[in-house]
Order: sequence, then C-alpha cells, then structure tokens
Amino acid sequence: MITETLPTFLMWNRYTPVLMYILLLISVAIPAGAALADPLPSWNEGTAKKAIIEFVRIVTDKSSPSYVPPDDRIATFDNDGTLWAEQPSPFQSFFAFDRVKALAPQHPEWKEKQPFKAVIENDKEALIASGERGAMEMLMTTHAGMTTVEFEKIVKDWMATARHPRFNRPFTDLIYQPMLELLAFLRNSGFKTYIVSGGGVDFMRPWSEKVYGIPPQQVVGSSIKKRFEMRDGTPVLMRLPEVDFIDDKAGKPVGIDRFIGRRPIAAFGNSDGDLEMLQWTAAGQGARLMLIVHHTDAEREWVYDRQSPICRLDKALDEAQNRGWIVVDMKKDFRRVFPFDPKN
Amino acid sequence: MITETLPTFLMWNRYTPVLMYILLLISVAIPAGAALADPLPSWNEGTAKKAIIEFVRIVTDKSSPSYVPPDDRIATFDNDGTLWAEQPSPFQSFFAFDRVKALAPQHPEWKEKQPFKAVIENDKEALIASGERGAMEMLMTTHAGMTTVEFEKIVKDWMATARHPRFNRPFTDLIYQPMLELLAFLRNSGFKTYIVSGGGVDFMRPWSEKVYGIPPQQVVGSSIKKRFEMRDGTPVLMRLPEVDFIDDKAGKPVGIDRFIGRRPIAAFGNSDGDLEMLQWTAAGQGARLMLIVHHTDAEREWVYDRQSPICRLDKALDEAQNRGWIVVDMKKDFRRVFPFDPKN
Repeated sequence: MITETLPTFLMWNRYTPVLMYILLLISVAIPAGAALADPLPSWNEGTAKKAIIEFVRIVTDKSSPSYVPPDDRIATFDNDGTLWAEQPSPFQSFFAFDRVKALAPQHPEWKEKQPFKAVIENDKEALIASGERGAMEMLMTTHAGMTTVEFEKIVKDWMATARHPRFNRPFTDLIYQPMLELLAFLRNSGFKTYIVSGGGVDFMRPWSEKVYGIPPQQVVGSSIKKRFEMRDGTPVLMRLPEVDFIDDKAGKPVGIDRFIGRRPIAAFGNSDGDLEMLQWTAAGQGARLMLIVHHTDAEREWVYDRQSPICRLDKALDEAQNRGWIVVDMKKDFRRVFPFDPKN
Repeated sequence: MITETLPTFLMWNRYTPVLMYILLLISVAIPAGAALADPLPSWNEGTAKKAIIEFVRIVTDKSSPSYVPPDDRIATFDNDGTLWAEQPSPFQSFFAFDRVKALAPQHPEWKEKQPFKAVIENDKEALIASGERGAMEMLMTTHAGMTTVEFEKIVKDWMATARHPRFNRPFTDLIYQPMLELLAFLRNSGFKTYIVSGGGVDFMRPWSEKVYGIPPQQVVGSSIKKRFEMRDGTPVLMRLPEVDFIDDKAGKPVGIDRFIGRRPIAAFGNSDGDLEMLQWTAAGQGARLMLIVHHTDAEREWVYDRQSPICRLDKALDEAQNRGWIVVDMKKDFRRVFPFDPKN
C-alpha cells in the first residue's frame, strides 16, 4: 500500500480532514499574512513611511470610507530623480553625448559645429552656451532619423555598456531601492504603476519593465513624431526630427489624460517639473497621496533643491509644505539608497 | 456534535479525504475544462471561427513553436464597423449633430452659418457640401471649449438618451455579439485588448469599459489638444479647438506605437482606414492574426464595401485576399449580430 511508504503524518487517518482544512485556510490567508510583513524594509520608520502605509490601507480596505476600487488605483511616478538618480545631469543626456561621439566619424562637419563640437571636445561651457536650441538640435540628431525598431536596439546596446561617471556602474543600477519597494507594494495592493516623465518615452520603454516592473504601455514620456512608411514592402515607423509632445510641467497632467484617461490617486515626483502632476492628482475627490523625493544625502547620493540650475525643487517644495504633501528626506528616510548601496 | 446536524455526505468519514482531494483537483482543472466549452457561440462554424480558435491555441500552448508570452499578447480592434455598427454614418456624427442642436439657442448666428444651418435644418446635401472644412468646424465647436470632466459628462448623458434612427435603441446596443465573445475569449486567453479607432478617444472612453470591458487606458483614438489651467485655484484640463492626433490609416500604427509601445500579434478592422494597422501587425515575427469584418448582411445590419463613400473597404479587401488574412462574412459567419438581435 502506498501509505506505508509515506511518513506517518502524511498517511490518511482521522486527522487528515482537519489537516487538509487547515491547509486550505492557510492558502486563503496567505495574502493577508504577507501584508503583515514590512512591505518597505529599505525605508526608515518615520512620517513618510507611515503615511504611505496608511494611505494604502485606507484605499484598499473595503470597510474604509476611503476605499478605492482596483480599477481606479492609478499611481504615477516621475522617473529622473524620483525612481533613479539624475546627477550630474539626466542620464538621457549621457546617451545623447555618446551617440554624438559614435556618429561623429560620419559627420566631419561636427568638428566645427556647435553643439557637436562641444560634445566631441568635452567642452562643458560651450555646451551650456549652445542653450536650448543646441540641446534640441543634438536631441533630434541623436534620437531621429531611424526606425523605431532600430532606435530600441540603440538604447538597449547603450544601456548594456554605458557606465555612470561617479559609480562606474550601468545607469540602470542607480535606481532607488526604497522606490522599487514602493512600486511593488502598490502593485501588490492592486495599483497600476505608471511612469510619467519628461524624459523620452522611447528611451525608457526598452528597459522599464525589466528594471521597474513597469511595462511599455505604462510609460508616459516626451516624444518626437513618427511616420509610417513602406520600405521595400515592409512597413516601418520612422522617427522624425520634430517634437510631438513634451511631458513635463503642465504637460504631465495632459500626458496622464492622454495615456491613462483617469486621474491618479497617488503621484510621486522630485522637482518643479512634477508640480502640475501633483496638483492634478490632489484635486481629485477621495483619498490622495502626493509625495516629493527631496535629495538631501551628499554622501550616498546628491544634495540639491532650490538653487539647482537643472532638476530644481523650489515651488513644488513650497506647495508641499503648504498643503501637507509628503516630503521624503532621502538622508533620513532611505535606509538604503541603491540596490548595490556602497555605504550599507 | 456539529456533524449530526449535517447531511450524511458532509460528515467527516473515511471518504472525506478522497472527496476533498477530488474537490481540489476539480478546482485546479476548471480553467482547462472551461476552454473546452465553445468560446464563440455566436459565430457559425467556418473558416473565420476556425482560424481564430487555432490562432489562440498556438500562441497560448506552451509546447507550441508559435507560443507567445502573455505580455506580448496584444490585440487591437478598430471600433466603428468592427466592434459596433457605423451606419447610416459613424455614431460620433450623431453626437456632434445633437450637440449643435443643443447649443443652437446660444448661437443665433448659426441659423445663417454653415455647416450649423444644415444640421439645424436636417439638410443633408448642404451638410455634405460643407465638406471636410465644415466637418472640422463642427467637430471643434462641439468637442472643444470645455474641461475634460465636463466633456465626459456630456458624452455619458448623450449616450444614455440618444437613440439610433433605425433600431430606436441606445447606440451602445449596436455592438456585435460575436465580437464581444471574441474580446472575452482573447482576454481569457491572456491577451490585452485595445481599441485603436479613428474616432475620438474621449468620445469612447466614458463607456468602453462598461460596454466592451476595455478600460480607458486601452482606448487609442483621435484627439484634440488640451491645456492645463488653474480655474479659481482648481486645476482643469481645457479642451482646445485644435487637432492633436488623427488615429486613422497610417496614423494607426503610430498610435499603437505611442500608446502601447509593442506591436500587436492580432488586429481586427473593417475598412481601408485599418489597412496600415493590419500591415504593421502582419509585419511582426511569429504567429499573427489579421481579420477584416465584411458587412454583407442588409437584413440584420448593412451591406457596404468598395463603393461606399464613407467607411470604404476596397484596398484592404484586396490585400486581405492577396495575403490570406481572414475576411469575416457577417451574413454567413455571424450567428447573431447584436446582443438584442431582432432577427434571431
């Protein structure tokens, strides 16, 4: 008999039904049990962590007056400075510089033409002097003129080989461990997590799912125009050197409306570029969570806010303080900063 | 003892473990069992139904060489003429006409101004004579100048009261029962179903989830520009009288790339406006399903294709025949047409 080969406690006996019933109960109880573990272990105890956990509790507890059905649990995250670092300059600019250098041999005229000359010669001052027009010209030269499939490969190849100048690691290592836990916590609580970034949508989509668990269709960002073309009988989408949409500042609520069609109940940012997204989120009815990541840790990361020439946090910090939004003090609130975390 | 109050078969006895084991097996087996039932009961047996079921089988069966992971199971559906009817003219035009009539008292000048005069007087010829410029003017007048929240309410109110002239039913009743089953079959097979329509995205989103089970963020459509504004301290998104994006013809693959960021493996249309979406889908690697709904049933619905002034199916029908895409003959393939189905 098969039971003779089994340990005693696995044999069918008068206790078996009780055991099976207990097993069933445990399997049903697992989700509740899992919630008892700390969902945010890389966050220090404090106002920010407490506010996040309390918000998730009241919108997911069916008996709470602030309960929100899963379909409406939309959370939007800025990317640069909120999910990953953005110093010494937003990482997409490193991509653009590297593309200029890679393309330079095909463009001998760049040796005498700004802003390309500045990039090739690592001349920071000349680069800044080229201004917004220079930045736009470089953006269009490096991000347009190829098919969508070709551009995706260029981004993936760059991401696999490029290294951050301070940490000498892939840029996708410079993501914030506490924010990864927050993304997972929200998703495990029935939220849909979106990126809503001023960065290029096609620069983020090739790696957002692997790095953040956020699939391409949940990445909202700035974009250039594209054109459907037949190339030797095969349809392609050509990337055109023309701005389609700037998903920053007042563009963020527009991008949210365009892509998601619902108002978020939680929004996360770190600069004045996120102010309108936070205002738009706050203006909805019912429970809301608005949170700003404040860069306060020079040792483990960077310190910047009101005086920063780029990535400035000024007006949004005032508004957060006036309206009681959560301001995360990275030095105090983040137990770890990066997943690799050299200082912990 | 509690068992004495229970029917005999529920009492714990020596068969209980066996029964519980069988119950567990059944609960595990339900998904497989459900797949054995006909997922498309409103489709007659034939080439189209067979092709759909076989396609779903090969992309979901892990042992199939054509297996596609769930994340990549993207299916895009045209709306007008594919998911719901579009005669005597696309339903959004009825919305625009009704809005003109509702707004007319505030615009006495419209009595002498085309295309508004034509709409107020039900003058079809004058309306057609006003051409594309007239249509665009009417569109902007009726679809812009209010906030996104206000427009959503206008659409919902109209949809609740407007009636289709032939069937005297809400327009949302004129959806195709076989296509509803197809949407559900694909979703039950791990697909994400998207609308990719030339119609206005904000005209569809207020009811797409209730009617098709397709949430707002999975509706891609044409759009006008919007602007974030503060109104008495409250942020609003104003709808501007300016085209943002036309999601039709060569715009459809662009819209798919913009909103979804992945290429569909299945696409469904009914007119030349869907040709590029079908070509873009077909050009991907691996198993693909391209399907055209051909309107062939004058009695239960309408008959139109190559000669139709609007909603024309001509080039796409040729391409379908040349490339072996599935062409659904509504008269032959649809056992029922509408959920209410007057003729069945």
